[in-house]
Amino acid sequence: MEYQHGGDIYTNSVTMDYSANINPLGVPAGVRRAVCQAADQCFCYPDSQSASLRGKLAKFHEIPMETIICGNGAADLIFQVVTAVRPKEALLIAPSFLEYEQALRSVSCGITYYELKEEEEFALREQELIAWIEESSHSFQMIFLCNPNNPTGFALKKEQLHPLLDYCREKRIFLVLDECFNEFLEDPHRHSALEFLRKGSHEQVFLLKAFTKIYAMAGIRLGYGICKDSTVLEKIHQIRQPWSVSSIAQAAGEAALEETAYVEAARSLIACEREYLKDNLTALGFRVYDSKANYIFFKDLRTEALQEEKLLYRQLLVKKVLIRSCANYRGLDGTFYRICVKQREENEAFLSVLKSILTERK
Amino acid sequence: MEYQHGGDIYTNSVTMDYSANINPLGVPAGVRRAVCQAADQCFCYPDSQSASLRGKLAKFHEIPMETIICGNGAADLIFQVVTAVRPKEALLIAPSFLEYEQALRSVSCGITYYELKEEEEFALREQELIAWIEESSHSFQMIFLCNPNNPTGFALKKEQLHPLLDYCREKRIFLVLDECFNEFLEDPHRHSALEFLRKGSHEQVFLLKAFTKIYAMAGIRLGYGICKDSTVLEKIHQIRQPWSVSSIAQAAGEAALEETAYVEAARSLIACEREYLKDNLTALGFRVYDSKANYIFFKDLRTEALQEEKLLYRQLLVKKVLIRSCANYRGLDGTFYRICVKQREENEAFLSVLKSILTERK
Repeated sequence: MEYQHGGDIYTNSVTMDYSANINPLGVPAGVRRAVCQAADQCFCYPDSQSASLRGKLAKFHEIPMETIICGNGAADLIFQVVTAVRPKEALLIAPSFLEYEQALRSVSCGITYYELKEEEEFALREQELIAWIEESSHSFQMIFLCNPNNPTGFALKKEQLHPLLDYCREKRIFLVLDECFNEFLEDPHRHSALEFLRKGSHEQVFLLKAFTKIYAMAGIRLGYGICKDSTVLEKIHQIRQPWSVSSIAQAAGEAALEETAYVEAARSLIACEREYLKDNLTALGFRVYDSKANYIFFKDLRTEALQEEKLLYRQLLVKKVLIRSCANYRGLDGTFYRICVKQREENEAFLSVLKSILTERK
Repeated sequence: MEYQHGGDIYTNSVTMDYSANINPLGVPAGVRRAVCQAADQCFCYPDSQSASLRGKLAKFHEIPMETIICGNGAADLIFQVVTAVRPKEALLIAPSFLEYEQALRSVSCGITYYELKEEEEFALREQELIAWIEESSHSFQMIFLCNPNNPTGFALKKEQLHPLLDYCREKRIFLVLDECFNEFLEDPHRHSALEFLRKGSHEQVFLLKAFTKIYAMAGIRLGYGICKDSTVLEKIHQIRQPWSVSSIAQAAGEAALEETAYVEAARSLIACEREYLKDNLTALGFRVYDSKANYIFFKDLRTEALQEEKLLYRQLLVKKVLIRSCANYRGLDGTFYRICVKQREENEAFLSVLKSILTERK
């Protein structure tokens, strides 16, 4: 098995990791404490129903506990919802998160791609998407939508999501709406479908959420889904082990939900630093797309950008800086990159390495 | 979803849990330390290949690292190996661990049961099993074998395993050999198939091992499989997320492997306390089976044993003591129970509650 994602600090020698989109404020102190405390009790099996954590999430989101399912990271739930629903034909947006495709392939689902256009800045236009599905001969049973999208950072607003949700309900298409990066947006509520699920008229939606990114808990593994279709949730329980979610993760999750000031701080930091990095990348001659998330998607425009030894990714790695090459995303090539947003000092150091490479080049 | 296993201290009010088969020495100090240290670094994604831990396991078992796959608890790997191999027809021993059946059902596999006989003390005779398969009209693609068996504690020796492994190889039956409780046996090597895998002549075997029980890490989730069929391992990677195993679990696992004195101590404690509990249960009038593991399987012989209000399980629960009713195991009923083995003081307290119930009864 090869490493295909960002965050591979294990086979690379890295001092600066700009490839994984994690909250730059680091693990909240409350989460660290909760993990240590949970370690003392970890001789017990985890609660297979994550009841206490789900209760807290229910309050947090003002949504019934019965609609919430926890998983060993959001990625785990992607595979499980696909296995539970077992679509024969699915629609994926390209480029988007790689695991959707892998999960669908694992159940031999046919995949059709709706390709975002570079000339439209990889923006998704919901009405065009609906018209395209209508005109196509496909009968999709599942659609994955990542909002904000990974790797582009493009974010649909609530009023753009609504027609999509309505369309999927009407056509009985199961919609997996991945909001794992929603909390990093300046106004998360403006981009979330949660409100529609609260109102209760959308059953065939699986809203995917993660602790991983916003609480900097990628190593702990904790994600959850919100879904009003109890049959799908029951099915997921049938096709997985009872103890998917470790006690450590459950304790960490409960502690994380208390960290509201931490999340606020991260959100304003990201808003500021994202623009700082964008401006600097633009000034350095890169084509920078309009990400609203905690990562930035850009293109290396130089003529030599695709030469193996001139790949920005490789040149940075020589300096022990890891960024995410987007070459293995459908519809992209090795001139596209994604970097995460960190704190000012780190961003300055990153830009300084980047500049040194561009200077060496001349 | 209902709780179906031991260890449900979440919906029951319990002060003494004898239902989960965990090392009574508790979480090793080294493991607790490793978890706390790992918490500081848990903003990073886990190594998707668990390379460092697998390297240590390879040394520990003297077997190539490439044959080892880690999972989010052994139960996770049960579902994954079944999904990877996708048998159409499988053989299960009854009674045995419930998750085999659930995993096979999740891929719509046909299941045939080989029922152990109460009059033979639920012992498995390997030659009889082979003869039975030969005579049957079935063409099995997978067999699950739990050694020592859960819940009976019956353990096959190496020389009894060998003909089974040979038979499965000859007939191209994929054998999942669950050795999750092997380390609790007085002489683990005498009951393990690892040596046959080391010699390299058995490809279609998946040897399942867990940290959960022997290192009292049930809440952390860590198990692993050893298998010489690289196609099966590659398939498992394709049908699951890359980050199945948390950084916390990987760190805990590496620390656990250092705990050789702890394991030795647990092993002698179990050997001694198991016999102590067995003798006392026998003296109290229970039919006690010959478990070699860290749990004891017994039968309540009293005529009223199946009356709802007289169920030993219920009577103990009133006193906040949880034991494992074996009523939901195929081939057993509510007169069969499994308890774990703990330290002397706890065992005395447990026996004292048990005696008080038997006395009340009269």
